[in-house]
Amino acid sequence: MVIAKAWVLKKHFDGFPKTSDFDLKEIELPNLKDGELLLASVFLSVDPYMRPYSRRLMKEGDIMIGTQVARIVESKNPAFAVGAFVVCDRGWRTHFISDGKDLRLLPSSWPESLPKSLALGTVGMPGLTAYFGLLEVCKMKPGETVLVNAAAGAVGSVVGQLAKIGGCKVVGCAGSDDKVAYLKKLGFDEAFNYKTVKSLDEALSKASPDGYDCFFDNVGGEFASVAINQMKKYGRIAVCGAISEYNDSVPQKGPYVQYPMIFKELQMEGFLVTRWNHRREEGLNALLKWVVEGKVKYHEQVTEGFENMPMAFIGMLKGENIGKAVVKV
Amino acid sequence: MVIAKAWVLKKHFDGFPKTSDFDLKEIELPNLKDGELLLASVFLSVDPYMRPYSRRLMKEGDIMIGTQVARIVESKNPAFAVGAFVVCDRGWRTHFISDGKDLRLLPSSWPESLPKSLALGTVGMPGLTAYFGLLEVCKMKPGETVLVNAAAGAVGSVVGQLAKIGGCKVVGCAGSDDKVAYLKKLGFDEAFNYKTVKSLDEALSKASPDGYDCFFDNVGGEFASVAINQMKKYGRIAVCGAISEYNDSVPQKGPYVQYPMIFKELQMEGFLVTRWNHRREEGLNALLKWVVEGKVKYHEQVTEGFENMPMAFIGMLKGENIGKAVVKV
Repeated sequence: MVIAKAWVLKKHFDGFPKTSDFDLKEIELPNLKDGELLLASVFLSVDPYMRPYSRRLMKEGDIMIGTQVARIVESKNPAFAVGAFVVCDRGWRTHFISDGKDLRLLPSSWPESLPKSLALGTVGMPGLTAYFGLLEVCKMKPGETVLVNAAAGAVGSVVGQLAKIGGCKVVGCAGSDDKVAYLKKLGFDEAFNYKTVKSLDEALSKASPDGYDCFFDNVGGEFASVAINQMKKYGRIAVCGAISEYNDSVPQKGPYVQYPMIFKELQMEGFLVTRWNHRREEGLNALLKWVVEGKVKYHEQVTEGFENMPMAFIGMLKGENIGKAVVKV
Repeated sequence: MVIAKAWVLKKHFDGFPKTSDFDLKEIELPNLKDGELLLASVFLSVDPYMRPYSRRLMKEGDIMIGTQVARIVESKNPAFAVGAFVVCDRGWRTHFISDGKDLRLLPSSWPESLPKSLALGTVGMPGLTAYFGLLEVCKMKPGETVLVNAAAGAVGSVVGQLAKIGGCKVVGCAGSDDKVAYLKKLGFDEAFNYKTVKSLDEALSKASPDGYDCFFDNVGGEFASVAINQMKKYGRIAVCGAISEYNDSVPQKGPYVQYPMIFKELQMEGFLVTRWNHRREEGLNALLKWVVEGKVKYHEQVTEGFENMPMAFIGMLKGENIGKAVVKV
């Protein structure tokens, strides 16, 4: 008999999540029926979206939502062999049973040498978010200038590198000097610490005096309000995230955006990566190829131990990670 | 010898424009040279854009910008006959000299019975703004629901009627009961006075419980912040104007827009009608045809007397007009 551990949302977050908002629960799993599989989570993802989605999709007592790389430990389903690795969205738990329908195999060309945790990051949802956001929302073209914030994060670090592959100039902003050093290592043309510059407006203007064609926004709030005024005519803004706002109990206020929108004839579009689920394979294969060729580099912040998931989540929301934050069970 | 009168910007507007911000000036025009024409303004336009553009394009002492319908009163240019009517952008003045290059003739199919002032409204820049904003920015499709504010204004009243012609349900908001009655006469499906409803949110929700596919925004500010939360998934917002913000000395603040943008995957695009100058003829011909057929109705608020231009402009900014505000010289 298998006892799964799971983290539940004990109390809806009020402001910044606290470890006391979570509860660790044990669940006794039944024996497998024909067609079923038993899986063990190997890597679990902590992502910014979990914060706003907790309020939208979960009630107190629910298991935290999320994606994992899991290994098949027992199989009564001939389509799946014991030992195979899959990706699925079963939330924060160590073990679970599946009939196989919700499991996604890693791309068949996945090299043995590549960490499987990348399927939660650069070759997973965050990588796809960068890929479709740049291609389909920003409509990036060679020779353009792309701005990305939270640039050392799981999505931002891929955005910058894909924009370089696409022939763009890339300006990245991050919240620590270590992160800025990382961005320069990744090949960003310009990078600065937005927390220590005297004026964000001046720093953006210095990094690209002609302004920005594309702005991939992971941060929202005040950053976005300043950046929108530095867009070029007909600039495109992909609204991917708003991490600066997720933990506000009382919504922040900012200037209305209509003025720069009108006079620069800007396009702003919000998106969720699920819009391109039908093109997931295309995206993953492209990302995997670039990673294997060394054209897209990655960094992971691995927290050891399932018991540390809340801490890893909170640390990620505080921006403590460089690259993708994952938890190793 | 001709003495032209002209209104100049005496002092940059601070908050709401006042009549003391304007000065009436006389300009002695020289005799015509070969190739030149003398024109007399017949109708002059007052439009919301003049308020923000005064700060962007003008310095104190400049003649107020704007468009007029003018009559050719003297011609030393064989391409233009005395008595012909043209449209041009010569600002607030009674007479001026042109070499003909900046003059636009009225469409050749213009019926004698139609007021020529319509070339400043429904069959002019405001009509084109509605036409291209709906088609190219909102990407309106039959069966969709369109929201428009400042709906009894020069642009809004055309937006609603074009959306009806395009097979949409139309909800219009305006700031007086007379305007709401006018919208109903124009065939709007739903219309309400946003100044007297208890809750804008509830009124919008009642007018279209399923939300809005398209939002043609002439107002910006708080109205837009409320309306954005009523958009359907993948809704499109055409940011045409922000009249609620034009007269602020200190910019108003509102909630950041990123949340609804992301979770509803909305598109927001600002635009200036000049983007489609190369398609002006297409737009004007379509608008003129609908007006002649009676499918697009119009109303004009005509102020008599060039000396009353500042008052007409201020009244328009206060929303005193139904339909297009023009001044008859």
